Amino acid sequence: MKNIIYADNAATAKLNKKAYEAMQCYLVEEYGNPSQAYSLSRSSKYALKYARETIAKCINAEPDEIYFTSGGTESDNWAIKGTALAFDRKKAVIASVIEHHAVLRSCEFIERIGYPVVYLGVTQEGIIKPEKLESVITDNTGLVSIMYANNEIGTIEPIKELVGISHKHGALFHTDAVQAIGHLAIDVKELGVDLLSASAHKFGGPKGIGFLYIKNGTDIVSYLNGGSQEHGLRAGTENVASIVGMSVALEESVTNISVGTSITELEKEFFNLLTVNGLEEGREYIRNGKKDAHLPGFINISFKDKDGEAIMHRLDLKGIMISTGAACDSVNTQVSHVIKAINVPSAFEKGTIRISLSKYNTIQDVKEIAQCLCSIIKKS
Amino acid sequence: MKNIIYADNAATAKLNKKAYEAMQCYLVEEYGNPSQAYSLSRSSKYALKYARETIAKCINAEPDEIYFTSGGTESDNWAIKGTALAFDRKKAVIASVIEHHAVLRSCEFIERIGYPVVYLGVTQEGIIKPEKLESVITDNTGLVSIMYANNEIGTIEPIKELVGISHKHGALFHTDAVQAIGHLAIDVKELGVDLLSASAHKFGGPKGIGFLYIKNGTDIVSYLNGGSQEHGLRAGTENVASIVGMSVALEESVTNISVGTSITELEKEFFNLLTVNGLEEGREYIRNGKKDAHLPGFINISFKDKDGEAIMHRLDLKGIMISTGAACDSVNTQVSHVIKAINVPSAFEKGTIRISLSKYNTIQDVKEIAQCLCSIIKKS
Repeated sequence: MKNIIYADNAATAKLNKKAYEAMQCYLVEEYGNPSQAYSLSRSSKYALKYARETIAKCINAEPDEIYFTSGGTESDNWAIKGTALAFDRKKAVIASVIEHHAVLRSCEFIERIGYPVVYLGVTQEGIIKPEKLESVITDNTGLVSIMYANNEIGTIEPIKELVGISHKHGALFHTDAVQAIGHLAIDVKELGVDLLSASAHKFGGPKGIGFLYIKNGTDIVSYLNGGSQEHGLRAGTENVASIVGMSVALEESVTNISVGTSITELEKEFFNLLTVNGLEEGREYIRNGKKDAHLPGFINISFKDKDGEAIMHRLDLKGIMISTGAACDSVNTQVSHVIKAINVPSAFEKGTIRISLSKYNTIQDVKEIAQCLCSIIKKS
Repeated sequence: MKNIIYADNAATAKLNKKAYEAMQCYLVEEYGNPSQAYSLSRSSKYALKYARETIAKCINAEPDEIYFTSGGTESDNWAIKGTALAFDRKKAVIASVIEHHAVLRSCEFIERIGYPVVYLGVTQEGIIKPEKLESVITDNTGLVSIMYANNEIGTIEPIKELVGISHKHGALFHTDAVQAIGHLAIDVKELGVDLLSASAHKFGGPKGIGFLYIKNGTDIVSYLNGGSQEHGLRAGTENVASIVGMSVALEESVTNISVGTSITELEKEFFNLLTVNGLEEGREYIRNGKKDAHLPGFINISFKDKDGEAIMHRLDLKGIMISTGAACDSVNTQVSHVIKAINVPSAFEKGTIRISLSKYNTIQDVKEIAQCLCSIIKKS
């Protein structure tokens, strides 16, 4: 293992050790196809059942409301296209402008086939105001899709209120909780959401696996057609080992959810260190997102007259891994749609970086990141 | 590990040891999100590149023609819906009646949104006759989808001829090669197919991963919208470890493709043993599929006045794992669509079982299976 400081936990988290260990047996010994009726398959079938129950418990859902998918992208695509295609007519969909591209591009897809889509703007902190939703929703709205917490700036949205407004108008509510789940306590019954997307590798599970919570009674069509797996709604041989890994990782994360408090402490220390090193908020940098309601460890800052890409590469040379924004769009080097939407002043927008800390980061890491960063900013 | 005889390799294959070992490093150490630009991600990015090149080489494709998916079901869904949605108008699709449900149900999906679909019948051996395709194809046909080899009876289809007819009429050709790849030598350039679906767990790779070969220049829309992974055509963080496992397993299978000959020997020995034990073909049982052109190790037989389900359970009690048909439909106990399509006589159809041997099976396994099976048939 290289001696690095990994501070891009929002892009992907390290695989949880217990999750990794739990996967091994289903990769090697218990290889039976869970759809088969013979004894070899009993163990993998049971593993699926237990994983489904474990995950359901973590978010206060019923086990038959959990559908395994290949990740957050599939969950988002399914939630949006699958509900839209099940509408009795082409109803409208409402999403925010700062949704993940898996949501935005799914919305564009249904727009192309004739569904009206309305995009809600956000405040400078990245908040979707309930009154904004109230002003555009109509009784012809079929679905509202608002993320639980933003993947670039970490802002946590007022989901419960947004759900209330949506339901009052008879619309379904989907939340892309990919970045939030495992990091914030989530109770689907209390929130009232109809659909919720999750991706394992964001909370210490393996890559290539996720799930979609679908509240019982929700009208949705299958998006991957074929065999009768997942109550006939999502075809394909189940990825048993990864599903087991995901359930163990989620249970671990939810059990240790209070670790968020100490991660938030690290985050505070980071900003103290910027001040100590002479960088002034508002003058040298802007802190993006909602200060009092964001994901633990999420630091999104825009430096004045700097280049985020260059900062990232210089930190990399020092063994520090951070990012300029969402991993999925790192091939695009322009300013992200989220940074545009929250109106970061033009002198600052290109200088945006995201640091995302996890429970594996120490105070020493934070000191090193702050020190290197300040030195890069001052020199460049 | 239980002491069993596993003879349901068509449902899922045991994970290849080298593939398993190759995966470990990407599960544990090299966890970087391959979309990121820092040094930690270099290794996972390189692993993806190498896996893509390896897989391309195995089927004589170009690396940029290989798109990673979550498995055969997603590949089939994408191939059919993705090309249909890219047509300039609603052209017709032709598929065979014995396609996997991932293909059939994708066809039903596009039918529901207005595309005409024509289903081709098969011979008693499960062959799609080129003249049959010729008789229904028109210049309004946009896509022909015929499987490389059937997953229940193993019959290998005359793909090259079918491709020739399709191209003559300007239609694209997709083949679901999920059951064939890694077991038969496949050269996409020689075949001329435009799209080919594959699933790793059928050739010794992990579950939950597959790929779609898309010939350069083929018009297709993305089916999982979102980030810019996979040349912008298939969004979602790449399942690096499983992709690496898949590439190693495919390379291993293709390098050892000649093992098929000895598996075919086992299959012959099995039928000899049925005869030795007094079971007569045509009287006590019918052998399904094309005898001189089927997947190595595929044994699909229908016993007269017997129940396949009961035979499967009795063999299971003896530690022998076989199936009654496709794993994906094992929750349905009725006679499969393939057995219906090849017109197995009604006295035989319910007594259908599938035994699928692999390189891990020995002559001793085959003797034991034949002996137990004959004893069950005679007693019941």
